[in-house]
Amino acid sequence: IKRETVVVKKPSIGYGTSDLFRLKKSIRENLGIENCIVPIHIIRKLPLVLREKDWEVTVTVDKENSTLIDIQPGRTSKKSYGLALDIGTTSLVIYLVDLENGKIISSESEYNPQIKFGEDIINRIIYANRKGGLEKLREVIIDSINNLIWRLLFNSHIDADSIVSMMVSGNSTMMHLFYGVPPRYIREEPYVTVANKFSSSTAKEVGIKHIKNAYVYNIQGVASYLGGDIASGILATDMYREKELALFLDLGTNGELVVGNSEWMMGCSCSAGPAFEGGGVKCGIRAVDGAIEKISISQKTYKCQIEVIGGGKPRGICGSGLIDVVGEMYLKGVIDRKGKFNKDIGNKYLRCTDDDCQYILVNGKNSATGEDIYISEVDIDNLIRAKAAIYAGIKTLLEEVDLSVYDLDKIYIAGGLGKHLNTRNAIIIGMLPDVDVAKYFFMGNTSVTGAYLSLLSEDKYRQSSKIAEHITYIELSVNMKFMDRYVAGLFLPYTDMKDFPTVEECLYSLDIKLKK
Amino acid sequence: IKRETVVVKKPSIGYGTSDLFRLKKSIRENLGIENCIVPIHIIRKLPLVLREKDWEVTVTVDKENSTLIDIQPGRTSKKSYGLALDIGTTSLVIYLVDLENGKIISSESEYNPQIKFGEDIINRIIYANRKGGLEKLREVIIDSINNLIWRLLFNSHIDADSIVSMMVSGNSTMMHLFYGVPPRYIREEPYVTVANKFSSSTAKEVGIKHIKNAYVYNIQGVASYLGGDIASGILATDMYREKELALFLDLGTNGELVVGNSEWMMGCSCSAGPAFEGGGVKCGIRAVDGAIEKISISQKTYKCQIEVIGGGKPRGICGSGLIDVVGEMYLKGVIDRKGKFNKDIGNKYLRCTDDDCQYILVNGKNSATGEDIYISEVDIDNLIRAKAAIYAGIKTLLEEVDLSVYDLDKIYIAGGLGKHLNTRNAIIIGMLPDVDVAKYFFMGNTSVTGAYLSLLSEDKYRQSSKIAEHITYIELSVNMKFMDRYVAGLFLPYTDMKDFPTVEECLYSLDIKLKK
Repeated sequence: IKRETVVVKKPSIGYGTSDLFRLKKSIRENLGIENCIVPIHIIRKLPLVLREKDWEVTVTVDKENSTLIDIQPGRTSKKSYGLALDIGTTSLVIYLVDLENGKIISSESEYNPQIKFGEDIINRIIYANRKGGLEKLREVIIDSINNLIWRLLFNSHIDADSIVSMMVSGNSTMMHLFYGVPPRYIREEPYVTVANKFSSSTAKEVGIKHIKNAYVYNIQGVASYLGGDIASGILATDMYREKELALFLDLGTNGELVVGNSEWMMGCSCSAGPAFEGGGVKCGIRAVDGAIEKISISQKTYKCQIEVIGGGKPRGICGSGLIDVVGEMYLKGVIDRKGKFNKDIGNKYLRCTDDDCQYILVNGKNSATGEDIYISEVDIDNLIRAKAAIYAGIKTLLEEVDLSVYDLDKIYIAGGLGKHLNTRNAIIIGMLPDVDVAKYFFMGNTSVTGAYLSLLSEDKYRQSSKIAEHITYIELSVNMKFMDRYVAGLFLPYTDMKDFPTVEECLYSLDIKLKK
Repeated sequence: IKRETVVVKKPSIGYGTSDLFRLKKSIRENLGIENCIVPIHIIRKLPLVLREKDWEVTVTVDKENSTLIDIQPGRTSKKSYGLALDIGTTSLVIYLVDLENGKIISSESEYNPQIKFGEDIINRIIYANRKGGLEKLREVIIDSINNLIWRLLFNSHIDADSIVSMMVSGNSTMMHLFYGVPPRYIREEPYVTVANKFSSSTAKEVGIKHIKNAYVYNIQGVASYLGGDIASGILATDMYREKELALFLDLGTNGELVVGNSEWMMGCSCSAGPAFEGGGVKCGIRAVDGAIEKISISQKTYKCQIEVIGGGKPRGICGSGLIDVVGEMYLKGVIDRKGKFNKDIGNKYLRCTDDDCQYILVNGKNSATGEDIYISEVDIDNLIRAKAAIYAGIKTLLEEVDLSVYDLDKIYIAGGLGKHLNTRNAIIIGMLPDVDVAKYFFMGNTSVTGAYLSLLSEDKYRQSSKIAEHITYIELSVNMKFMDRYVAGLFLPYTDMKDFPTVEECLYSLDIKLKK
């Protein structure tokens, strides 16, 4: 998307031709677009717009498709805006951006409403296969996006017509569902997408309301389980142009990993479940105001000290809080290596029934909801399976290229939990490699950041496609080594303690006896 | 538009990529289209269509815009059809064409319903300038076209979905009105169009119903008063690739003229009024069944002998019949050089009032309508003004390039009247140059023929644009010589008899005394 003011040559008896011909000539000379397509609805207003301010017009051009999107008389002072949208399996995030200065005017986020039809990608695909399932999934996501856009417009008082573009990033399944394309073959061997990059389209074509003049673009994906969210994410880091070896981790419901540098990149994907985004956990919520993001546990009383996003009373616990609490519980002996509660340590915050045990983090009196905020063995188990998948993914991917975690110069962590994550605790539970914490960089939601960058810059947008084409994908679902490591990761921090030397040291120094 | 069967490579674990990528690769390899755009609605059905017949599909591609229009599983036996449409100022003609063998399945024609808002281009433009005028003009023409298409489909029993394209030809004003583009500046100095070539679009975008899968293309025009109908017309003759010098005349409501050969071409336009298409004449009708197309007058009794298109009783007189009757009346002394009736020759078929005289061609008893079919001085006057404009155009155009009518090797006559025209009578009234009648070639409606050729062949379609770009246009409305010659042409056959030596000879030999 490019907006520029051009002056069109006036016609004369000697130099007649058509208005369109002269406009195209100006566009070619000023914007370097060879044969710009001008849709009929724009040709309809062309003669009046051209003559209104003495042949000076401001054109908005979609360079990807060489198409004129909008034309306004004169050197327009009307601002133009864009939207950057990340469609995550669990969450939606959208930015409203001033395209002239890159300022993020406002942002909104929400749970992905498709969750009720399946918590992860695989269950969504299964649902989409049912009669009417795909249409239902598309309908609810489009409704949610329309709703988010409506809120952005309402709060910012911006004219809907000044929104000219929307850049969408998401994993391959989310993109299929967004565009209403059957995702079925993503989960059937040989696991192919229908498209890694969808044609850009008008907002209307995909059912987006309010912003009828806007064009919708999407970030190119790599493969079935390595989507545009990752190309977008890598664009948001600088690893695609650095010589240093980096590992990129996107910790969403689907964990996606890329290792490499400016010369080469290799990636894979592993299903982590929604725990990192507060899903599938009884008291779990997204990393929004009211979420417990940090916890420390008293070694004497087992009472929790908490930090809440935005201050105030807590409403639940988010992904980073969950990692913190499991790390702390393990270090303080509240749970054992298998994630089961030690019932004989005199922990008075533990409440057990025949089926399950719950550790009360916050008493109902002190919570925003009036209900206790707790963590159960089922919740811990969910998190352990998630972290085991991530760590198994990292190990498998690195071994494919004959590297170890110590070869890495940088580790970028992306995902909704990233900003609040306590790296040390993530290492303690065996989720992240046991390397110097100074090597970790928290990037937050890089999918929306990459979409934002691509929205603002055509070069970045093109770069995102280059990144997608550049990544070699390995399919872990057929990889036996991955399964072995996943099983080994179902212990805290890992079956083989040699992988986590500083954790082992720490446990000894804290005088915690490991059960062999 | 190109339809071809391609085989898409099957995916495997080793060669995954996306369905879209592999399809685009097949299209590139088989049809030579580099980066084919595949709209979202096609991507939606892509995975199923590809797998239905084991990765063999039939694709329909719009090569002009490198866009995939349709995809069907397997080697489809489904036929594809197209429509060729000529939008004339006075008449609409449409062909339904089998795109495989080029056969014209059926055709329909109708008066242009915009006539009631103005008989000629100028009056239509004036009407379009009124509030709501443009929309009204667009509405009625689109309604008529929808109606014609409905009739074609109904009569041919062809599935509307198998119509993949429509090629539209027409003069510049008609194209503006068809696309809903303000034609205002066509008649204001310096007389420029908004566009000579409109972007191709879906049928839906321009309001064409029934054929929702079809793309609509248009033939490129030259200038405000030399439209796509002429590029189309020249494509239908072969003058653009012959060395011989030819003159092309399109005798519609707007007379359009091009002189040249494969090396150069120059064209102009002059308003003739609707007389050639039976308009603006009391008993005038189009050249359809029931129209009088030939007339001879008895020198003794002044009784008319007529020939009727389709046999049967006459309903009115068409353009060629009108030229015939005026030629005959002049030769037989019924009218004088000014086109006024000679009242003293004892013509009992003449019926005069204070205001006007009418010459009864067919008595009401013998007509299909039960009413007399006659010609009045007003009608004759209309025809004389029309022929004066045409002849003035021819003379002015030829003199611009220092040629005379005797330099012409061929004269192509196009327009609704062409097929039935008596050249000799057209020469006698001073409409066509007085040269050997063997040089005249009657082409009929070349605008629809050119549209038909372009519909079938991409090469021809491209050629039509080349022709449009190749023609140098001269604007006659600012040309004083043209006006002088027009005034000189208000006599039969012309003020200066030297231009029409064989007519002069003929008049002498028939012993008709010329009034000086």
